[in-house]
Amino acid sequence: MAEDSKGKTVSELARFVGGHATGDINLLIDHVASLENANQGAIAFIENTKLLDKTSNSNASCIIIQTGSSACDAQSIIEVEQPKLAFALIAQLLHPPKKLNPSIHPTAIIESTTTIDAGTQVHNNVSIGNNVKIGKNCVIHPNVTIYNNVTIGDNVIIHAGVVIGADGFGYVRSATGYIKFPQIGTVVIEDDVEIGANSCIDRGALGATRIGQGTKIDNLVQIAHNVEIGKRVVIASQTGISGSTIIEDDAVIGGQVGMGDHARVQSGAVIGSKAGVLPGKIVRAGSVMWGVPVRPLEEYKRLNAYFGRLPQMHNEINELRQLLQKALAKIEEMEKR
Amino acid sequence: MAEDSKGKTVSELARFVGGHATGDINLLIDHVASLENANQGAIAFIENTKLLDKTSNSNASCIIIQTGSSACDAQSIIEVEQPKLAFALIAQLLHPPKKLNPSIHPTAIIESTTTIDAGTQVHNNVSIGNNVKIGKNCVIHPNVTIYNNVTIGDNVIIHAGVVIGADGFGYVRSATGYIKFPQIGTVVIEDDVEIGANSCIDRGALGATRIGQGTKIDNLVQIAHNVEIGKRVVIASQTGISGSTIIEDDAVIGGQVGMGDHARVQSGAVIGSKAGVLPGKIVRAGSVMWGVPVRPLEEYKRLNAYFGRLPQMHNEINELRQLLQKALAKIEEMEKR
Amino acid sequence: MAEDSKGKTVSELARFVGGHATGDINLLIDHVASLENANQGAIAFIENTKLLDKTSNSNASCIIIQTGSSACDAQSIIEVEQPKLAFALIAQLLHPPKKLNPSIHPTAIIESTTTIDAGTQVHNNVSIGNNVKIGKNCVIHPNVTIYNNVTIGDNVIIHAGVVIGADGFGYVRSATGYIKFPQIGTVVIEDDVEIGANSCIDRGALGATRIGQGTKIDNLVQIAHNVEIGKRVVIASQTGISGSTIIEDDAVIGGQVGMGDHARVQSGAVIGSKAGVLPGKIVRAGSVMWGVPVRPLEEYKRLNAYFGRLPQMHNEINELRQLLQKALAKIEEMEKR
Repeated sequence: MAEDSKGKTVSELARFVGGHATGDINLLIDHVASLENANQGAIAFIENTKLLDKTSNSNASCIIIQTGSSACDAQSIIEVEQPKLAFALIAQLLHPPKKLNPSIHPTAIIESTTTIDAGTQVHNNVSIGNNVKIGKNCVIHPNVTIYNNVTIGDNVIIHAGVVIGADGFGYVRSATGYIKFPQIGTVVIEDDVEIGANSCIDRGALGATRIGQGTKIDNLVQIAHNVEIGKRVVIASQTGISGSTIIEDDAVIGGQVGMGDHARVQSGAVIGSKAGVLPGKIVRAGSVMWGVPVRPLEEYKRLNAYFGRLPQMHNEINELRQLLQKALAKIEEMEKR
Repeated sequence: MAEDSKGKTVSELARFVGGHATGDINLLIDHVASLENANQGAIAFIENTKLLDKTSNSNASCIIIQTGSSACDAQSIIEVEQPKLAFALIAQLLHPPKKLNPSIHPTAIIESTTTIDAGTQVHNNVSIGNNVKIGKNCVIHPNVTIYNNVTIGDNVIIHAGVVIGADGFGYVRSATGYIKFPQIGTVVIEDDVEIGANSCIDRGALGATRIGQGTKIDNLVQIAHNVEIGKRVVIASQTGISGSTIIEDDAVIGGQVGMGDHARVQSGAVIGSKAGVLPGKIVRAGSVMWGVPVRPLEEYKRLNAYFGRLPQMHNEINELRQLLQKALAKIEEMEKR
Repeated sequence: MAEDSKGKTVSELARFVGGHATGDINLLIDHVASLENANQGAIAFIENTKLLDKTSNSNASCIIIQTGSSACDAQSIIEVEQPKLAFALIAQLLHPPKKLNPSIHPTAIIESTTTIDAGTQVHNNVSIGNNVKIGKNCVIHPNVTIYNNVTIGDNVIIHAGVVIGADGFGYVRSATGYIKFPQIGTVVIEDDVEIGANSCIDRGALGATRIGQGTKIDNLVQIAHNVEIGKRVVIASQTGISGSTIIEDDAVIGGQVGMGDHARVQSGAVIGSKAGVLPGKIVRAGSVMWGVPVRPLEEYKRLNAYFGRLPQMHNEINELRQLLQKALAKIEEMEKR
C-alpha cells in the first residue's frame, strides 16, 4: 500500500479492519467523509443504528455499519464491531499526514546538544533548547517552544504554540517580595502523546513533570510543575492541573476543570467539565465526579435539582410556619376553655 | 483626507459622523483621548450625561456629547446620537493602523499554494500552511500559525499567537488506547472577524469550523472542531466552545464560559461570564442566561440569593421543629386530661 | 563567587543565608535537590519539622532546617529562620540562569525604534514592535510577541508565547455590526515581574495597562485593557481580569478566577481558585474570598456544606409537614369533642 495511494477497494479496506464487505466490493475508495457530504469514492460510517435510514440519502461509495445491523441502502457496506474505530483506522490509511521536506524546517532553532530521532518533523519557527531528546516519528508544529532538558518519546504530536518546560510557578515570600523557588527539574513526555495548540507543560521544580504514554491533551491546557499524568489519560480544553497533582491511567478529564495541588485522580475516574478538585483531594478509581468542589455525579445532579427548588423550599417553610401558628393559636384557645 | 493627516477641524469631524458642531469649530483635532488625559488637539467623548460636569476639568479641544444634553463647558462640542460610536469612528480616521513595508514580512513562512489578497499584512514569524486563502486588508500579527486548507475573508484581524486549523480533539477508544479520529476538515473565517491573542480555532473533523462575518473573539478562547458561529457574535476571553456547537447571529458570550458539544445558542442570546452550557442544550433566542448549568439570569440571581440564606433556612426548620414539638406535647397533655 | 562556580562549602552557604552550620561544615555543595533525590554534593531543605525523621534516609550533603528544630541525622546542617527561603536563595547562587551568547538571538525581530538595556536576553523568534523600552537583565523567552509602545522594567522574565500589548477587546455596536473602539494605549510592566507562558496582557484602550513591581503571573492568564495590578501580586494560571479592574499590592489570586470589569481587589486580599468577582465589586483589603460570586471564605464553605445537605433539608420539611398535619388533625378531633 503505497503512501501516494490512489485508494483501496472496499474488500481491501474490509480486510484491513477485520470487517465483512457486501455489495460492490471492488469499488475504489480514496477518502473518508461524513454521511451527508460523501460523494463517489468516499467511505462514511454510521454508529447509531437508529440513523440507518439516513444512509439512503448518502452518496458514499461505502458505508461502515455495525455487525448485525439491519441492511442499509448503499453501494457497498463494511460490517464491523466498532464502526467509528474502523473509520478512524481507514482514515489514517487513506489520509496519511503530509511529510515535511526536509523534515526539519530551516527556520527551526535547535540547540546543538539536542537529539532528534529519525522520522520526526520539526516545522518552522519551532524553538528547542539544550539537552532535549526527541524520539522518532514525532510532529512538532510551528511556533512551539521546548525549553532545555526535556525528554519526548516516539510518535508524539505537538500542536502550534505549545510551550514545554517553562518554569513552574513557585516563589517564597521574603521581606522584600517574592523569591523564585528553583524551577530546575525536567519534563518527560512518553510515546503516543498528543498536545493541543497553545497548551503549557511546566518543568518540575526539582523533579520531573510527566505525561504518560498515549495521553491526549486538548488546547490551552495548563499542566503545572511536578504533575504526573498516567497512560491513556484524556484532558479536554482549558483545564488546569496544579503542582504535584497525580492523574492515574485512563482517567478522563473534561474541559475547564481546575485541580488544586497535591490532588490525586485515581485510575479510570471521570471528571465533568468545569469541575473543581480541591488541593489534596483523592478522587476514587472509576468514580464519575462533577461540581465545585467535586462530588459524585449523581449526587451533584440531585443537589443541583434541589438548588433549583430553593424558592419552593423557602415558600414551604413559610407555609408550615403559618399553619403551625394557626395550630398554636387553636391550642392556646383550647387551653383557655 | 490623506492618511498622514495632520488632523481634521471640528467641523470636518462633525460632518464625518453626522453630528452638529458648536464652539470653536475650526480647531484642529489630531488625536483621541480620554476626558481626563485630553490636551490641546484631543477629542474626547462623554456618554453618561450625569458626568457632564466633569467636562469642565478637561483640556480636550473638542468633546462629543449626546444630542440634547445640556450644554457643557468645552472649547468645542460635537453633538451626535451615539457619542461613543462617533468617537470610535473618529479614532479610526485619526489613528489609521500603521502599514507594514513590505506588507509581508520576510520571516513569515507561507507555502507556495497559499494565496493572499492585496492590502493584507503578514507580520514576522507567521506560519501559513498549504492551500490557505486569505482575503484583502487583513492584519496577521506575529507568531500566528495557520494550518493547511483554511479560508479567511477580508478585513480580518488575527492577533499574535493565534492558532487556526490545528487538529480537533477527537479519538476513538480501542483495546490498546486512543486512535485519532480523522481531523481533516477546514476552517472558514468570514469578513470583518477579529481574533484575540493566543486563541485557538480547530479545523473540522470532516466538515468545517465556521466563524461568521463581523464576529469578535477575545484572547485565549477555544473554538473546537465543527463549531459554527454566526455573524456579529461577541465572545469574551477564555471561553471554550465544544465540538459541533452552534452559536447564532448576534449572540453575546461572556468570559470563561464553557459550552458542551452539540449545544445551540440561538440568535441574540446573552450568556454571562463563567456560565456553563450543557451538551445538547438549546439557549433560546434573545434570552439572558447565567450559571452552571445556565438558567435565565433573573432565576439564577434569585437562586443565588436563596443559596446565601441557606443557614437561615436551616435555622428556621429547626425552630419550626421545636415549636411543633411543643405543640405536640401540649396536645398530648390535653388529650390526657 | 564566580558564576561557573564548582560549589560552595556548607559554611559559606550558611553565611550567605545568615544561618548556623553544624556537622561537616567544609563539605562542598554544588547543587540543590529534593530530600528524596539528593545525593553527594546536594543541599536539601525541610520545612515541616514533623518530617524530620525523613532526613535519615536522605543522602544530601547538607540539609537546611528551621532554627530550633530537634537535631536531625545529616552530614551537615544549616539552621535558619526560613528554610525554604534560604533554599531558594542558595539555588539562585548555585544555579545561575545560563546566559545567551549573543544576548539577542539573530532571529529575534526588533524594530529600530526600540531600546533594550544591558544584560537583557532576547531569545529566538521573539517579535518586538516599535517604541518599546526594555530595561536591563530581563529574559524574554522564544516566540514572545511585544506590540508597539510597551514599556518593560528591569529583571523582568517573560516566558515563551506571551503576548504583550495586543488590542483590548472593545467595540461599539452600530447599525451594521461592531465598530472597534480605539485600542491605542500602552502597557507598563515594572521591575521584577515574571509572566508565565502564553499569557496575554492587552494594551490600554486610551490609557495604560499596568503590572506593578514584583508581581508574578502564571501561564495562560488574561489581563484586559486598562487593568492596573499593584506590587507583589500573585496570579495563578488561567485567571482572567476584565477591563479597568484594579488589583492592589500583595493580593493573591488563585487559578481560573474570573473578574468582571471595573472591580477592585484591595491590598492583601486573597481570592480562591475558580472564584468569580462581579463587575464593579470591591473586595476588601486583607479579606479571603471564594465562590461565584465571591463571598468570605468561611461563609462560602458553610454555604457549600448546607448545599450538600439540601436533600436532608427537603426531607425535614416533609417530615415537619406530616407531623404538623397529624397535629392539626388531632386539634380538629379535640375541637369536635
